[in-house]
Amino acid sequence: MRLAHAESLADATLKHAREIGAAPLAVVVLDAGGHPVVVKREDGAGILRVEIATAKAYGALGMGMSSREIATRAERQPVFFGTLAAVTGGRLAPAPGGVLLRDAAGTVVGAIGVSGDVSDVDERCILEGTRGAEPDGPVTDRAGD
Amino acid sequence: MRLAHAESLADATLKHAREIGAAPLAVVVLDAGGHPVVVKREDGAGILRVEIATAKAYGALGMGMSSREIATRAERQPVFFGTLAAVTGGRLAPAPGGVLLRDAAGTVVGAIGVSGDVSDVDERCILEGTRGAEPDGPVTDRAGD
Amino acid sequence: MRLAHAESLADATLKHAREIGAAPLAVVVLDAGGHPVVVKREDGAGILRVEIATAKAYGALGMGMSSREIATRAERQPVFFGTLAAVTGGRLAPAPGGVLLRDAAGTVVGAIGVSGDVSDVDERCILEGTRGAEPDGPVTDRAGD
Amino acid sequence: MRLAHAESLADATLKHAREIGAAPLAVVVLDAGGHPVVVKREDGAGILRVEIATAKAYGALGMGMSSREIATRAERQPVFFGTLAAVTGGRLAPAPGGVLLRDAAGTVVGAIGVSGDVSDVDERCILEGTRGAEPDGPVTDRAGD
Repeated sequence: MRLAHAESLADATLKHAREIGAAPLAVVVLDAGGHPVVVKREDGAGILRVEIATAKAYGALGMGMSSREIATRAERQPVFFGTLAAVTGGRLAPAPGGVLLRDAAGTVVGAIGVSGDVSDVDERCILEGTRGAEPDGPVTDRAGD
Repeated sequence: MRLAHAESLADATLKHAREIGAAPLAVVVLDAGGHPVVVKREDGAGILRVEIATAKAYGALGMGMSSREIATRAERQPVFFGTLAAVTGGRLAPAPGGVLLRDAAGTVVGAIGVSGDVSDVDERCILEGTRGAEPDGPVTDRAGD
Repeated sequence: MRLAHAESLADATLKHAREIGAAPLAVVVLDAGGHPVVVKREDGAGILRVEIATAKAYGALGMGMSSREIATRAERQPVFFGTLAAVTGGRLAPAPGGVLLRDAAGTVVGAIGVSGDVSDVDERCILEGTRGAEPDGPVTDRAGD
Repeated sequence: MRLAHAESLADATLKHAREIGAAPLAVVVLDAGGHPVVVKREDGAGILRVEIATAKAYGALGMGMSSREIATRAERQPVFFGTLAAVTGGRLAPAPGGVLLRDAAGTVVGAIGVSGDVSDVDERCILEGTRGAEPDGPVTDRAGD
């Protein structure tokens, strides 16, 4: 995950958020190892939003699926996913807004996470905002699209 | 958040608590970054009350809403909010008694948290006690009033 | 440690700090169990000052001696005291500014910690400020005086 | 600390780093409460660089001085500053590369931290890069300049 690509994806997400009038957001792009490449927190976004956005993206990497899919599974196995919060040291958040990033070959190269509005809007900013945003770079996983 | 203002709000909260015969309370005033400005724990209040009051106030800052509103959302998304305890390192408590503080322009400048009685009473001590307490300083957010 | 007594000691410490023109301080009064009774952070004091003041006071309670005495011992056994930082989970700071509080019978009933200026000034604000401040309540241990 | 200002300062720092051929860096801009506003990690920067840059900036906020000044004090009090790593939960790094940000009135509004090259180069990228970068926004504290 290159900084230039990560930044394009983050900026495209925030641009869409402003267009649809979303609440102030934090956006985080992690590399394949779960380490931050870009973080941006908009004016007025709460002080825990970066942690929550990170946990959505990290959890996606950790489970190999979007945080929306994790949320769906968590509804069916609430006790197990509740314990995962502790097992993972708080690095997993089961709510929409964390999306895998893949290269042209389909390999996971990172993840993007958003927090600030309700989870469905958080995720929509990623999926709508990054559509076609980075033709040469990684693309957002459309599985949950 | 100035110490003098924070202290006025804390004292007004505890004064109301004594007037209505609330259980012994801890009151915490945090600045906008979630760092303590004033903490007071009344005689007889349990040794975890400061942590709980802090988590109510910190969570309000972290999410940009009162801990009552966080509690309401937590009822609709119990698994997600359960994991937030771990995601945030225990800095968020979804129960009434954490209220944002805003300056005259409406900007969040801190939060006040109370723990010791049942959550509704904790919150009432803040909202009733601080009403008009600090005319020149930050005021408690009345959204949950 | 009663709230009224703790608050008198904290206020007397800060009053002395203002009289001698100390840097902005955080003052913390802990009960015998190491739990906060009063915390006050002056305008302009750094956001880690409450943690440091707490660690000075907590360490005094933990070792049964002032943080100045802990600092003296730490100079003779730097590796051991370095590991104590981890052993205690960061609840011990070997620098002047943490002083035991005793009742009339000499029993330890709490501790007071200060951080913000250089450690010698932090401790001086406690020892000078609280001299005679609380005739009916706990008194600061004068061993390091 | 507004996102636009934070981003200008981060970009100016990285621009200077590329001009002088510094090693790949991570740059972090925190608000006054120590919460991230912008994080950027250059291609090739190690996976702990964001944490180290954050600790330099957070420590500066926590102590109210540059991380260079903290490093100088740490040399005189090695045991005390060693324990501060634990006291602060790893949020303080005593090495140059963490600089306070002040508004026109001199109030601390945040801090910028850099890690990736040797500490002197990290700091130079901040101080040289941000010189005049943000005329309407916060400026880097020149005390260590």
